[in-house]
This record gives sequence, structure tokens and C-alpha cells, in this order.
Amino acid sequence: MTPPTVAPAGQTVAEHASAIRHWRPGIVQDVPPPGLIDLGPGYPDPALLPVGLLRAAYHRALDEYGPAALAYGHNAGALPLREALAERAALADGHPCGPDQVLLTAGTSQALHLLSGLLGRPGDMVITDQYSYDLGRRIFTDCGLRVRAVAMDELGMDPAALREALRAEHAVGRRVAFVYVNPAFHNPTGIVVPLTRRRELLDVTREHEAVVIEDDAYAELTLDGGQSVPPSFAALAGYRGVLRLGTFAKTLAPGLRLGWLLGEPALVAWLGEHGMLVSGGSLNHTTSLAVATVLRDGDYDRHLTRIRAELGKRRDALAEPLRALLGERMACRVPGGGFFLWLGPGGTDAAREETYTAAAEAAGVRLAPGSRFGAGDRPRLRLAYSFNPPAVLTEAAHRLAGAWAA
Amino acid sequence: MTPPTVAPAGQTVAEHASAIRHWRPGIVQDVPPPGLIDLGPGYPDPALLPVGLLRAAYHRALDEYGPAALAYGHNAGALPLREALAERAALADGHPCGPDQVLLTAGTSQALHLLSGLLGRPGDMVITDQYSYDLGRRIFTDCGLRVRAVAMDELGMDPAALREALRAEHAVGRRVAFVYVNPAFHNPTGIVVPLTRRRELLDVTREHEAVVIEDDAYAELTLDGGQSVPPSFAALAGYRGVLRLGTFAKTLAPGLRLGWLLGEPALVAWLGEHGMLVSGGSLNHTTSLAVATVLRDGDYDRHLTRIRAELGKRRDALAEPLRALLGERMACRVPGGGFFLWLGPGGTDAAREETYTAAAEAAGVRLAPGSRFGAGDRPRLRLAYSFNPPAVLTEAAHRLAGAWAA
Repeated sequence: MTPPTVAPAGQTVAEHASAIRHWRPGIVQDVPPPGLIDLGPGYPDPALLPVGLLRAAYHRALDEYGPAALAYGHNAGALPLREALAERAALADGHPCGPDQVLLTAGTSQALHLLSGLLGRPGDMVITDQYSYDLGRRIFTDCGLRVRAVAMDELGMDPAALREALRAEHAVGRRVAFVYVNPAFHNPTGIVVPLTRRRELLDVTREHEAVVIEDDAYAELTLDGGQSVPPSFAALAGYRGVLRLGTFAKTLAPGLRLGWLLGEPALVAWLGEHGMLVSGGSLNHTTSLAVATVLRDGDYDRHLTRIRAELGKRRDALAEPLRALLGERMACRVPGGGFFLWLGPGGTDAAREETYTAAAEAAGVRLAPGSRFGAGDRPRLRLAYSFNPPAVLTEAAHRLAGAWAA
Repeated sequence: MTPPTVAPAGQTVAEHASAIRHWRPGIVQDVPPPGLIDLGPGYPDPALLPVGLLRAAYHRALDEYGPAALAYGHNAGALPLREALAERAALADGHPCGPDQVLLTAGTSQALHLLSGLLGRPGDMVITDQYSYDLGRRIFTDCGLRVRAVAMDELGMDPAALREALRAEHAVGRRVAFVYVNPAFHNPTGIVVPLTRRRELLDVTREHEAVVIEDDAYAELTLDGGQSVPPSFAALAGYRGVLRLGTFAKTLAPGLRLGWLLGEPALVAWLGEHGMLVSGGSLNHTTSLAVATVLRDGDYDRHLTRIRAELGKRRDALAEPLRALLGERMACRVPGGGFFLWLGPGGTDAAREETYTAAAEAAGVRLAPGSRFGAGDRPRLRLAYSFNPPAVLTEAAHRLAGAWAA
């Protein structure tokens, strides 16, 4: 068993810059400009990506399965991984889940693309939270769907607003493809939708026979001392009318392009009959067998324990000095898990969002404006603490406090 | 450098059955029933899947690129692989091709799914050969598109029939999403569309401003002594209006789920801006860096040389006894490359297609009825020589000759 690679917590700005020198344009998706501390994208810190663990995993999978690891895979995905994922879901939710309820995907983005085409037709509506994953919305619209955002409060999507939106769409004769939620350490707000609210929202979707897509990318990333996540919408609904998406992008490595979908057996079987799967087999066969070996021997849980601790340090390294330095001038929601802090100017401060992002950028910190995730009545800012080591995050907090003091 | 794994040519039916004992249900897409010789699916022989080569490739990629091999990849795919593929295309076609013309895909099935959604709207028409890749057709229809097959002769799609089809669709006001061709060792007929016919067909598609999708899954699999493949439709058109698909599924391993798409730079850039890619990055990042190391040092060309020779032996081991035993009773097209023999009863034999497939199955050989690939006026049969070793294929020929003698 190869131990996961975890960076020394004391890495400086220069050391972190040096560690990502292999992040060359043309290889990775985005390379932060030199000198800039990038709190923009929800990337895992390169130092938390388990190179040794996965190198050993590919080796094991090719040794153990031989040519079967390289053949056309089972349409729904390799059984050993589907079994392991079903077992984890059952254990976390306290609700039965079998391998026939699991379809392996090439990640959440690919799953959202597939489901947009299968559940929606051009012109159909997707209902999302007031603030929601910007690139998810872009997948929906690039598939010809429309997006309607409904109000949220501190507990997540507002059930009355959801009911009103579903009624309004029905009234104009427009189909709702699905309701998209992200209820565990929500991107961008960090909110965990509590049990009661989950039930209320499910009552509304059932009432209107609306399908729910539950994006649970961050559900396993409860940080040290963080709040626990209630049973999933999928489990609460007995999987009826809910498709739940998971991914290894945030917990193991984005580049693997491996995720999964949980649903009712009949629906999962129907998805597995799509021409793309009947033709090509499992969406990421070799990699899924490699990852199955990581889940098998407890390596995955040990890795999760470590990155939860590391992410906790990173959250605190950013949030504590920010709160100390900015006080009531900037409200900061410190989440119990996931990747993001969600900030908003306190009191009656009425500066525009761009004022904050521009001042931050001038001080050498990039962050994501709240408007990217949806419209609100006041400025909001998303800060990812996932990508940088603690010392760099504390440096970012000081730069931001200086930038926003003026 | 690890040498590719190539099976001993003399493997028997029992030995081959034993070699695929790891092909358990739930792992791979389809497991042939014991005792049956499966000439149905276009699978590569497990013994030709380069386990050692790819194990070393993943190891190298994770060593060399470290965390960058596990991060969100460049939207269009890792540059080292795009550069290598562009160079190969330019060399084979004698026409310039740059890395900005390459988008890495998760295989041909995934590419066809993506393009069906982007180029087509539900109800649009896809034009295919009279006989064409059955599961490609299924992807199109599962994306809400319709399929219109046009007549083909010994040289491929008939240009006059294509013109007529495009006119007819235009006349009823229906959009043509694209024309789908598979001009190099065509599935199922094995035909290589010659240069003149390629130019004639391109004249027609240009005239009607129809986009061409050129599926070149088998283009690199010219067998020993086989015919050479003319420049691609894409190169002949200067990439204008043609998207060309390649895959490592037939040359390296299907389970990798890795392919590529070649097109005009502006079109490739537009595809790379799809929400699915902007969100998730490259469609198969870690694996693409592994495969890039295989192309880099000549390992891929050495592997191709070996599997071309091995596939040539397999084709001959099936075709030669079939022709000797069946003579003029069964016309057999022996292709210069690819995976398939295409058979049809000679003379005035008027038995139904099912008569041949049922007799074959009763004698312990599974094959694919021609009707699966489109409608013809006479029975046709597709026999894949890709999956079984030579001794097993010769045994299959004898079983078939016995079954069809009656």
C-alpha cells in the first residue's frame, strides 16, 4: 500500500508556485499567473493529489485483471466498483442501495451532459438554486435547456419558491427537465440542506412529478469538526424520482474523469441501454478498475481522512485571519465541509461586486464574483481554500484585508 | 520499454477460453458462452491487448507529470498527445494538421454522442451508408435524430444516391445534421473508399453544405499486404466541413476510452468551449498522458506493426478455409485491413439470413446478421476475425462450412 502524497502544511507562496511548475499550459486546465494567489477555481491542491496511490492502483488493476482491464467494459461500469459505491451509499444514508442502482460516469460534467440530453429536450427548463454551480448551468444551456433560478435562504432552496416556479412553468406549458440541487456543502455557498428542508423540497417535487438531480460532489468532504450531512435526497425518496451524482474529482483526482450516478434500478438499466454505452461500454473502464482497488483495502478511507484534515487546516488558515481582520465589514460563512468560503459585505456597504474583485486582483488575489453563480441583491464572493496550502491562504487573507480596508 | 503482449498464434479453442476466464460478467461488456466461437462483436483479441505496455505507460505518466497528470486537464486534451496525433495525421494524409485541430475524446461513441447533440436537433436527419455501424446508428437515434441510409456499391456510398437523399431532405424542409461515413475498412463491409469516390462524395456534400463525420476507427489497421488507405475526407476537404474521428479502441485497448477528433481550428475551439469541457476539462486526462508516452518513443508504431501482422494471420486463418470449403456458394470479401469479413450467398441461393445465422449458432459459431447494419436485398453476414486466435478461427471456418453445406 502506497501512502497518499500530502504536502507539508508550511509550504510558502514560492514553494507552492514551484510545486505547480509542471502545471504547464496545454497540460492542465488553467495555470495561475505568477505571483497571483488563485482562490478562483474549485481545484484540489496539487499536493493533495495522491500520485503514488493511483500509480500503484493502475499497476494493481492491470496485474489482477490483465486484458479484462483493457477490454470493452460492462455497460453500467465494472461491478467491483459499483458494489463498493453501493455499499458506501447504503452505509452513509442508512438506506439500502445495490450495485444495480449504480452507473459509472466519466465525472459529474459528463453525467450532467448525458442527463441533459436524455431528460430534457431543447427549450425545456432546469430549475436551480438562486446561486448554483456556474459550469453546471453552462452545460444545461449548451444542451439547449433554459435555467430558472429560485430563491434560497440559509437552509437552501426555498420550498415555496420551488412550488411557485414549478406551477409557473406548468402554467405556460413548458416542460421541466429536472430540478438541480447540490445540498451538501453547496457550491458556492457552503450550505448543507438540513433534513427537514430536504423532506419539504421532496414533497414539492413529488407533488409536481419533477425529477431531481442531486449533485453530491462534496458530500464526503466533511472537514474536521464539521457538521454531518443528512441522508441524501435520493435515499429519502427511496430513489424514486431522484438521480444522485458522485465523483472522485474532489476526493481523489479530477484528471481520472471518474464519477457515478445512483438511481432506481429500472432507471439505471434504461440509462445503460443508451447507444453510447451499448457501443463503447463503461465510460471509463480501465480507470474504474484501478479506483476499485483503492476502495477495496481501505486506502480510500485513509486518504479521505487525510485530505479532510488538510482541507480543514486550509479553511481555517483562510477564514480565521479574514474574520479577525475584516470583522463585521465582511460576513463570512465558514462551512463544515467542501471547498469554499462565501463572503458578503456586512451592514449597509453598497459597493459593487466588481469593486471587491478588482481590489483583490490588484492586491494579488483572484477570486470568483458571486454573480457568476447567479444573481443576488447584494455583492457576494466565493473563495476556494482547496487549491493553496495554509501559509499561502493566510497570506491571501492579509492581502484581501489590506485591499478591502480602503 | 515493455514489449507488447502478443499471444502465441497456435492458441486452441480451449486455451483461448482459458485466456478469457477473467472476462467475467460484470467486468467486461460481453462474455461468449462456453463452447461457442464468437465472431459477433468487433472486439480485439484479449491476447493482443498490451497489458505490460500500458501498465508502464501509466507509471511513466504519473512519474513524469506528477500531480499535473491528475489535475483538471486542458479542455481540448493534453498537448503532448494532440501534437503527436496531429503529426501522425499530417504524415499519413500529406496535408498539414496542427494540434489546434485536435480534440481528445472519450472514444468514438462519446464523440458521436457529443456531436449528435451539438450538430443535430431532435428530428434532424443523419445520412449513412446503406450498411453502417449499427451502434453508431443507435447513438444517433437515442439522441433523437433520424437515420436515412443511401445506396452503396463496391466503392462505398453512391454519390448520386447521396445527392438525391440530400435533395429529398431539403425538399421536405428537414435539416441534415451530418453525413456519417466510415471509409477505411468500412464496418461491416470492409470497403476502402478510393480517392476518386472520396472526391465525388465531397463534391456532393459541399454542394449541399452538409457536414461530414468521418469515422476512421480502422484506418491504421492495414493488414500485411493490404491495400493502402487514400488521404482522409478531412484532408481532401482541407478540413472544411469534415470532422474526422480516431480511436485507440481498436489499436491499443477499448477499455482506455480514449479517442480524438480532427477538424478546422475554429470548429475544434468551439467544441472545446462546450460546458462539459469547460467544467470537467479534458475528457480523459490521466489516460491521455499515459498514451502520449506510448506514442512518443515509437512504442505505438511497434505495437501497430505487431497487431497488423497478428490480425493478418487471423483474417487468413478464417478466410482461406472458408473460401476453400464454400467456394462459389458463399461470396466472401477479404479486406485489406480492419476487423471483418463480409459474406453473402452466391448464385441464386434465396435462403433467409436467419437460416444462415441459426445454422451457424447450432454448429457453435456466433456471427452478426447483415440486417443489423442496414437493409439489403440479399442475405449478408459479418464475421469478426479480431477476437479469436488463428486456430480457433480455422475451427470456426470448418464449423460454418459444415453448417451451411446442408
